[in-house]
Amino acid sequence: MRNIRLLVSYEGTNYAGWQIQPNQPTIQGELERAIRKLSGRDVRVLSAGRTDSGVHAFGQVANFQIDFPIPPHKWRPALQAHLPEDIVILESDEVPLEFHATFSADGKRYRYVIHNSLVDDPFVRRLSWRISQPLDADAMHAAAQILVGTHDFRSFETDWPNKATSVRTVRHLSVRRCGRWALLSREPLDSHPPVGEAEAPFVCLEIEADGFLYNMVRAITGTLVNVGRGTWSADNVRQVLEAQDRSVAGGTAPACGLFLVRVNYPGFPWST
Amino acid sequence: MRNIRLLVSYEGTNYAGWQIQPNQPTIQGELERAIRKLSGRDVRVLSAGRTDSGVHAFGQVANFQIDFPIPPHKWRPALQAHLPEDIVILESDEVPLEFHATFSADGKRYRYVIHNSLVDDPFVRRLSWRISQPLDADAMHAAAQILVGTHDFRSFETDWPNKATSVRTVRHLSVRRCGRWALLSREPLDSHPPVGEAEAPFVCLEIEADGFLYNMVRAITGTLVNVGRGTWSADNVRQVLEAQDRSVAGGTAPACGLFLVRVNYPGFPWST
Repeated sequence: MRNIRLLVSYEGTNYAGWQIQPNQPTIQGELERAIRKLSGRDVRVLSAGRTDSGVHAFGQVANFQIDFPIPPHKWRPALQAHLPEDIVILESDEVPLEFHATFSADGKRYRYVIHNSLVDDPFVRRLSWRISQPLDADAMHAAAQILVGTHDFRSFETDWPNKATSVRTVRHLSVRRCGRWALLSREPLDSHPPVGEAEAPFVCLEIEADGFLYNMVRAITGTLVNVGRGTWSADNVRQVLEAQDRSVAGGTAPACGLFLVRVNYPGFPWST
Repeated sequence: MRNIRLLVSYEGTNYAGWQIQPNQPTIQGELERAIRKLSGRDVRVLSAGRTDSGVHAFGQVANFQIDFPIPPHKWRPALQAHLPEDIVILESDEVPLEFHATFSADGKRYRYVIHNSLVDDPFVRRLSWRISQPLDADAMHAAAQILVGTHDFRSFETDWPNKATSVRTVRHLSVRRCGRWALLSREPLDSHPPVGEAEAPFVCLEIEADGFLYNMVRAITGTLVNVGRGTWSADNVRQVLEAQDRSVAGGTAPACGLFLVRVNYPGFPWST
């Protein structure tokens, strides 16, 4: 029995999310079908995070256990041949049997892309939330720092309670203006040099935490957008966090602007 | 009677090109239909260039003459309301009656994007031609300089003779490695700083000329790719140009990697 890890990128537009569902296209469903076609085996594919309907991924991590004679690195092209074009396997390799894509992860990074423009753009419409009104990205960034650290994020969780605890640790949360590259770059945005506002029609939020509650990034984005519009102050964000009540936070930003950027697996040699 | 200029951006994937055709979706067809819905008038929309099936545009220029009481800048949002999401009007304004999108232009710039990678990418597949084999972009750039200047480009024209003359003046032709921003930037690539090869999985060709023959950019790309693969030398490119024979040049690169970047209209005040 081998444990195969996959690094997967997908455009989520045409999928009902990661998790397999009857009669709906899902990322997990497509991967399990591709494995079945290739090997004749029914396996369960695990992932670092069950991205929602319409959410994209630059670097989703998945794994499955199988007894089938293909060299680990050959799973990538072999499975790709059975996958639709909007799901791409970037890497495949063998990992220790104890590796579990969900439970071995100690953190994930998401990006939310807002196209802050009066005018639409045909090349980014599937990958961003367009807001016409000018946003103050600096004010959003300053208010966002209130959320960094270990807090009960119940105010930012849809359909609480979903999990045993709604306490999470946000390690990094930044909001900045970005150029178009932000929509396609797999690298964390802080690795790019800052740019002036004129060439930066996007406002991007990037957040890294030890775990995320259901819709947490989208609820945080909806809340910070209220700050960007000038409706709320940083103090309001503090009150929202302390209220531990979803109804007082901002709305849930649409799925199309959200990307799973990367997953951290400390202790595994291939992990960066 | 007013003459209205439109700056239009579109993803060409789902269209049979610019020019109106029976029973097929085209950019011109969608624009004329939107004008008809809005005004009840049948007008002919002219463009700077009739992009082919599947070709994209960052800045196509169009114009039409109409007698209808809408302020010129209001055509943009008013028409947009009747257009599909993959055709976006960026600007609308009134121009002198003598302005003609085709004949007033004195040059156009196209970009061709090659995704030079063994592995696919779900976010760029509609907007690039993927070539697995490593390409030597510097050799392509050097060979490309042979084509700069005034030449008979008959070797790079499909179905010659299409036009009275196949002599054109290429003012600029560059090939360079680019990051992902090249797929979304409306600015000429030479305005971006160069990047190292590791972060630059794209090889982009950018060409500006006083006019283009049918499939000229795609035939030039196919020819320079042979240089990038090491199959041809710069001398071969010179021989192809001098042969004035389409059959000796490289293949026609696929439409999905081609973008109309901008059109030049010297002498018109809004033209940049």
